[in-house]
Amino acid sequence: MTVHELAEIVSGRVVGDRETRIERIADLDNADEGEIAYVENEKLLDAAAESKASCLIVRDGFAAKFPDRTVIEVANPKLAFALIGAALHPPLSREPTIHPTAVVAETADIALTAYVGPNVCVGEYTHVGAYTRLEAGVVLGMNVSVGNDCVLHPNVVLYDGVSIGKGVILHAGVCLGADGFGYVRHDLGYQKFPQIGTVVIEDEVEIGAHSCVDRAALGRTRIGRGTKLDNMVHVGHNCDIGERVVIAAQTGISGSVVIEDDAVIGGQVGFGDHTRVQSGAIIGSKAGILPGKIVRPGVWWGIPVQPLDQYKRMNAHLNRLPQMREELKRLEAEIEEIKKKI
Amino acid sequence: MTVHELAEIVSGRVVGDRETRIERIADLDNADEGEIAYVENEKLLDAAAESKASCLIVRDGFAAKFPDRTVIEVANPKLAFALIGAALHPPLSREPTIHPTAVVAETADIALTAYVGPNVCVGEYTHVGAYTRLEAGVVLGMNVSVGNDCVLHPNVVLYDGVSIGKGVILHAGVCLGADGFGYVRHDLGYQKFPQIGTVVIEDEVEIGAHSCVDRAALGRTRIGRGTKLDNMVHVGHNCDIGERVVIAAQTGISGSVVIEDDAVIGGQVGFGDHTRVQSGAIIGSKAGILPGKIVRPGVWWGIPVQPLDQYKRMNAHLNRLPQMREELKRLEAEIEEIKKKI
Amino acid sequence: MTVHELAEIVSGRVVGDRETRIERIADLDNADEGEIAYVENEKLLDAAAESKASCLIVRDGFAAKFPDRTVIEVANPKLAFALIGAALHPPLSREPTIHPTAVVAETADIALTAYVGPNVCVGEYTHVGAYTRLEAGVVLGMNVSVGNDCVLHPNVVLYDGVSIGKGVILHAGVCLGADGFGYVRHDLGYQKFPQIGTVVIEDEVEIGAHSCVDRAALGRTRIGRGTKLDNMVHVGHNCDIGERVVIAAQTGISGSVVIEDDAVIGGQVGFGDHTRVQSGAIIGSKAGILPGKIVRPGVWWGIPVQPLDQYKRMNAHLNRLPQMREELKRLEAEIEEIKKKI
Repeated sequence: MTVHELAEIVSGRVVGDRETRIERIADLDNADEGEIAYVENEKLLDAAAESKASCLIVRDGFAAKFPDRTVIEVANPKLAFALIGAALHPPLSREPTIHPTAVVAETADIALTAYVGPNVCVGEYTHVGAYTRLEAGVVLGMNVSVGNDCVLHPNVVLYDGVSIGKGVILHAGVCLGADGFGYVRHDLGYQKFPQIGTVVIEDEVEIGAHSCVDRAALGRTRIGRGTKLDNMVHVGHNCDIGERVVIAAQTGISGSVVIEDDAVIGGQVGFGDHTRVQSGAIIGSKAGILPGKIVRPGVWWGIPVQPLDQYKRMNAHLNRLPQMREELKRLEAEIEEIKKKI
Repeated sequence: MTVHELAEIVSGRVVGDRETRIERIADLDNADEGEIAYVENEKLLDAAAESKASCLIVRDGFAAKFPDRTVIEVANPKLAFALIGAALHPPLSREPTIHPTAVVAETADIALTAYVGPNVCVGEYTHVGAYTRLEAGVVLGMNVSVGNDCVLHPNVVLYDGVSIGKGVILHAGVCLGADGFGYVRHDLGYQKFPQIGTVVIEDEVEIGAHSCVDRAALGRTRIGRGTKLDNMVHVGHNCDIGERVVIAAQTGISGSVVIEDDAVIGGQVGFGDHTRVQSGAIIGSKAGILPGKIVRPGVWWGIPVQPLDQYKRMNAHLNRLPQMREELKRLEAEIEEIKKKI
Repeated sequence: MTVHELAEIVSGRVVGDRETRIERIADLDNADEGEIAYVENEKLLDAAAESKASCLIVRDGFAAKFPDRTVIEVANPKLAFALIGAALHPPLSREPTIHPTAVVAETADIALTAYVGPNVCVGEYTHVGAYTRLEAGVVLGMNVSVGNDCVLHPNVVLYDGVSIGKGVILHAGVCLGADGFGYVRHDLGYQKFPQIGTVVIEDEVEIGAHSCVDRAALGRTRIGRGTKLDNMVHVGHNCDIGERVVIAAQTGISGSVVIEDDAVIGGQVGFGDHTRVQSGAIIGSKAGILPGKIVRPGVWWGIPVQPLDQYKRMNAHLNRLPQMREELKRLEAEIEEIKKKI
């Protein structure tokens, strides 16, 4: 595509040669002819100057800093780069087909434009939407609903009754709808608590490899529209995760947790059950939230979780502990001294 | 089923209309006609009064609080609800079959009543018990033994020689018998330590999605009868997990750990190797146990793990740190004052 | 094999009957006739004396302690045991074949000596090396390269373009090349940042069950030669893991982390992005490393990570907190006393 065409995608202003052809995106350091890179901030001006990229995406007003080059000016270079990347490197498209090795129930409803790969299994009364790709080894149970334009990577498993919206991406091995972890203790051991609810994944959600979202005991576990989960995230039964929430890798969410829209959660965070994270909360990696806790807007850190500035103050105090002990000893000695004198 | 029939399952006493028909379980708030809910404690009496459930399961002696309704009185309403749920919503039953796409070794021994789903692989000399379900994509190696009445959800993998008992449920992607993590360092790198032992899973165990139990280096890794593991739990080589142990999601157990019967382990806990958890111990989520540690009965918390009350006292002390510093400064000033005076 | 033959493998010195036949390795306690065990240190001399093993591997100079037995003397008994174990228990060898249920693209290049198991999928232009085993359900995308002598256990998934070297072992469910976790926030939600790089795994790497290594956004994510990852390890996009690195289970590594050769990382460790671990660093389990941190050689511990001795000192201070409070109160009282007196 030409620089001009790319600039149109991001409503950018071209300065330089509008007809330069661009093949690929690249980072500043490794970019070469035919590639486009972006300059996120002023610190990178030197690197940008030395970059061999055929076009640079820069912040509005920065074109003047690159007099001899072709640039696209935009408000948000990183976002423009992402959009241009999506245009230059569209996801793999598959010819619509049902692979002869796929095992599709007679009552399943597969869109004509869908791709059903090798060894895929589709259960009774399951719906697969238009232009959706089910890669090799995907297993859909009964009464599953998969929206349009989804990509289910190899070996994804959707248990019976699970429903996912449009434009959802599930990476390899994602498991939706396994039984929640609930038992009732009795004299002889544990009786399984019924897990007959379901999982609902809304539009434009992306879930990383090997993440698991358990079905609700009763009712549903929900992941809201536009939410993104990293690899190996565990979402327990009956959780309600809002829209545009971001959750980094290996975070574990116990049962009945509510995370409101736009929360940002780091990696390896652990949530006790029935916690609520309010919209506007940012939780640092490795934090631990006690059961029932309400996490208000702001930045949170630590085990158990506390506001970041309080956490920092506490750490500062901790670091002064050796000094405090010294002072304590000194005062003790001085008091002894005084006692002798009087 | 009628209320009368359900009451018989849990040895409960019906007050009200014994012939009311019940189709489903539900929670108090969402229950509707034809549904049964339970009232766990007195706090829920108001919710129960407003519930539209056709029948309520209540504690012995509570029927009088619901004069116009049909109730079942039992000693433990939650347990009764779970048992009634199991009766109303039995697990999916599959017609006994070996799916034509399954790849079953000639020497494998599959019970006539077993279900072997699409794309399942069963290795040489492997045994699959009566009424056991192997869902799509399950892979059983050689010399594997699967007991009666088991459910192996899609894409479960059992390496060669692994043995599981009766009534075991393995959720999607569970992996049993992968090599333990053992190497010997030498001048040029790491030599793999032999991992030629096995994994033994006893009766009535349930293991959550994507959990992994590694084979022993020598000997066996064991999960005892009635033990329940949540999603993404890691059990290292040569561990011995007792009976009726509960382990929440994402907990990691290093090699040669012993967990005795009836221990309760939270989520994201980490065990150093050769630790021993005694029967009666309860370990809070995110705790860390140092290698070789013996965890005695009681409630434990923190990194490294300590008794909960000690942990709480420590936290209280920590929270008083700023105040201690203030006091220290004040004392210092007073001493200066005194020194001036004398 | 005879004791003599085994001794040759490890350049050991036989004392006793060179022709004793050995069938299996075993540990000291459980060893029986026809089995060989090793004596790691002097603490085990008693156990060794009572062992029924037909041969013992002992440290140089220790043969005299076992006058009536057949022993092999070596510099490093554990290493010798591992090597002898590998000789006595070679990995399963499979007849070269492409199973009739495998789905192999016409342009794929499969070595004649490779084993392609049931339901394996191999994409266009993908290369599978000599003597490599692809177990049941493995999915290789397009343009994948798998070296010679690799073992890919069931349900391993390699996304398009991933490359792995020689002698690599990937346990069940390993996922290489899923998209890194990168988004750009905009007014309406998150725009996916392009993930068009790749993953390169070098020779002799072993990766535990269900571990995930994400592809680079641009460029490549690398795991260096001889490195060993345990189960459920997460490696983010653009990481560069060196040679002979050891990483225990459930550790999570954010994007763009560099881990230099020979580092040793415990389990459940969490790395912020852009951290660098220098060669010679050892990081204890459950540690947390803040983004951008450089971890120098030495032993590190805690959240956030600090040198082990500093961590221990801090813990000692913490444990003295109650005592400090007592002292503070006592001093306060004494000062009051003094003030009254003067």
